[in-house]
Amino acid sequence: MIYEPISLDSASRVPMYRQLYESIRDRIGAGALEVGEKMPSIRCIAEELGVSRTTVEQAYQQLCVEGYLVSRPQSGYYVEAAVRSEPPHPDEDREEKEPPGVRYDFGSRYVDMRGSDIELWRKYVRSVLSREDIVSSYGHYQGEPALRRELARYGMLLRGVNAAADRIVVGAGVQPLLSLLCGLLGERAGRVGIEYPGFAQAERVFRDFRLNIAPLGHDKYGVTAAELYASHIDVLYLNPANTESMGRPMPVSRRAEILEWAERTGGLVIEDDYNGALRFKSRPVPAMQGMDGGGRVVYLGSFSKLLMPSVRISYMVLPEELAALYGQRGAYYNQTSSKVEQLAFAEYMRDGHIEKRLRRLRKVYAEKSGLLMTLLAEYFGKKAKVRLAETALCVDVTFPCAVSAQELARNAMKAGLRVIPTVGGEENEKNACVRLSFAGIAEEDMRGGVALLHQIAEENR
Amino acid sequence: MIYEPISLDSASRVPMYRQLYESIRDRIGAGALEVGEKMPSIRCIAEELGVSRTTVEQAYQQLCVEGYLVSRPQSGYYVEAAVRSEPPHPDEDREEKEPPGVRYDFGSRYVDMRGSDIELWRKYVRSVLSREDIVSSYGHYQGEPALRRELARYGMLLRGVNAAADRIVVGAGVQPLLSLLCGLLGERAGRVGIEYPGFAQAERVFRDFRLNIAPLGHDKYGVTAAELYASHIDVLYLNPANTESMGRPMPVSRRAEILEWAERTGGLVIEDDYNGALRFKSRPVPAMQGMDGGGRVVYLGSFSKLLMPSVRISYMVLPEELAALYGQRGAYYNQTSSKVEQLAFAEYMRDGHIEKRLRRLRKVYAEKSGLLMTLLAEYFGKKAKVRLAETALCVDVTFPCAVSAQELARNAMKAGLRVIPTVGGEENEKNACVRLSFAGIAEEDMRGGVALLHQIAEENR
Repeated sequence: MIYEPISLDSASRVPMYRQLYESIRDRIGAGALEVGEKMPSIRCIAEELGVSRTTVEQAYQQLCVEGYLVSRPQSGYYVEAAVRSEPPHPDEDREEKEPPGVRYDFGSRYVDMRGSDIELWRKYVRSVLSREDIVSSYGHYQGEPALRRELARYGMLLRGVNAAADRIVVGAGVQPLLSLLCGLLGERAGRVGIEYPGFAQAERVFRDFRLNIAPLGHDKYGVTAAELYASHIDVLYLNPANTESMGRPMPVSRRAEILEWAERTGGLVIEDDYNGALRFKSRPVPAMQGMDGGGRVVYLGSFSKLLMPSVRISYMVLPEELAALYGQRGAYYNQTSSKVEQLAFAEYMRDGHIEKRLRRLRKVYAEKSGLLMTLLAEYFGKKAKVRLAETALCVDVTFPCAVSAQELARNAMKAGLRVIPTVGGEENEKNACVRLSFAGIAEEDMRGGVALLHQIAEENR
Repeated sequence: MIYEPISLDSASRVPMYRQLYESIRDRIGAGALEVGEKMPSIRCIAEELGVSRTTVEQAYQQLCVEGYLVSRPQSGYYVEAAVRSEPPHPDEDREEKEPPGVRYDFGSRYVDMRGSDIELWRKYVRSVLSREDIVSSYGHYQGEPALRRELARYGMLLRGVNAAADRIVVGAGVQPLLSLLCGLLGERAGRVGIEYPGFAQAERVFRDFRLNIAPLGHDKYGVTAAELYASHIDVLYLNPANTESMGRPMPVSRRAEILEWAERTGGLVIEDDYNGALRFKSRPVPAMQGMDGGGRVVYLGSFSKLLMPSVRISYMVLPEELAALYGQRGAYYNQTSSKVEQLAFAEYMRDGHIEKRLRRLRKVYAEKSGLLMTLLAEYFGKKAKVRLAETALCVDVTFPCAVSAQELARNAMKAGLRVIPTVGGEENEKNACVRLSFAGIAEEDMRGGVALLHQIAEENR
């Protein structure tokens, strides 16, 4: 019996389903549960451990989504693989070999390039490339000064970020910036709270630095202040523009409570403002960092969905104290982001193109998301629960399904349809949740894609 | 008396001067020694602690080089700053504001662009930029497959590296790759040995991961096997192509001893092959990784001096076991290196340009280093000790001097001459060692630069 030695702690801060998920995952990883082995039924485990069926369902579902388990209709759950196998983040479904014949692609590898600035971008890159002194010398470790000046202006204007060029550090993505931050924080970052499931790539960095990860519970407005005080964390990693719980921005009152927690406990908030400016149904909510008077927020911004996915430029705004520490150590960190691309981007921003691009993208994505929601309603009606996450540029669709989301996604792929299996909120043994990114797919392909998804959902009902 | 509480352990693996250096540095950092305070004389400390004057001199010199102390002629040593202030690596003397009027630049920010491929490089970048599917999608997390194939071929052919594309990970510099490696190693990397002073940016990453750093002593061939067994390290960070001790490649016999240490103790060698192919006086020595049959070497290669300093492309070759672990986790790491630059570089390599560029650079640097050595002999004669470090593209010059190397470098800068203050091997209270990079300076400027250096050396004698 695999669940014999599992003991769950109902007094723990870690949700029960998460404890169970981790226990099973570790057993699979350690080989105590072998690939192909049948898992005990949900009812059986629930009775043995004295927990609700929902708890076990949630744990199993998470294990299915991550590829550890597979659900076989009329049979049960089986160990599928000893390692997590699903793409961890909508941005990152990046197989080396593209399966042939993807006709309808709701994956998130691409962005809509209609009305894109690709020609303009080439012009700026070419112009920077032509300056030999730039190409033949090293870049500035903190990021090119010209770019940092533009980022300070942009952050202030479009995201309400309290930024100064000398407190900005540029990097080739959120990960190298988080690595740098973990180094700067040192022992101050013992325990990190994340709104589960959160951004897997950020969690990876925290795990690499061997920090303790505390998955935090939430109510409908996101992480609660009570949870923060109870969890004894030093650092909170958060995307207030798009809470995991609801796919909506966190209300200002909740933000204020979180800042108060940080002030009182000496905690630090890492605000990952992923696509924070990319709201189209309502005005963007300014960044939390701008509300912070006490230097308790590190702000992270990035541009892969705004500019070109291939361009790796992110930035971090440090509070005074950390900026001073960085000032001492900065020269020991090499810049990761391409110097040519940084300077091209600085000039692109300087000439006002990023604002224009934002306006265009908001219009494009408002239309595309509207069309997708309409089509889903038309085909699925009340059979599916549909949730739009604006800044994530995707729609989560939960519908009755006899197989796991992962298996459904595989079946869809065979039929030429790419969707992203995920954990929504409504899935259980009888439901599956898939994520449809509307960033890359053309509007004229949407109807065909939704029709095909509906057909596959019916076949796997 | 600041040295009262200092206790040195003569039985320790850490050299005495290093113990003393660290004690004083920590006291300065903690404010126990204040800026402006006069330090006890070398003789005085040596007597109190019962160590040789040379030990104290070495510690003081290191503190001067790093900007903690300053030596004032006919007066003594004073606390200069509470934080390390010198550029940590010859590659990286990167002030935001360039002091005006540098007439002769022996700094290492630039490389020789004569006969460079800047036009060719632009052509490749433009060609990649023109392909919309590339620019509008994310890159591969491990590095573009086309580039990894070229790197495998190049590593094999030019550096004797046993590489396969699927064991190669690309990154925007050595630091992000080392971060990734530290994460993969987890608890296996408790204690890291480095050949002191080593590459400060690598040490920074190890410190950020809160690993123990063991500075290792060496004989004339580099780190000794005895030192490795005695130091109880898990990981050795090494540049066998250019040992810190001598600026020469480590002999094959020593390499074999180090690999044997790794085999016997389960240790891991990180071979940083910085400019390993850039030897011009003799044939390049193949990489140590190629001698390794047991999967105990991680190989690091980079191209900033070969291609363009502004382009950030490095790579890491993992042994089988770590490659398998990376295979499980890789998708959780985003790529840092620019996709466009990676693909441009892949095509540049594919067309054979990297080999051509290497041949040209070897010729250029053979000529430039020869001229510099000749000029130094002409001006300084026997008054200076001169050491060429081929792959580092620099010459270390040690000469009698009444001020610290750092102060001398400041005086030189005022006169329009940039040199890099450093620790050579011959410096003490009466000598200073400065590093002259010959990578960026034009040959026609060399005579003027050396003459000016000689004049300043005479003035500060």
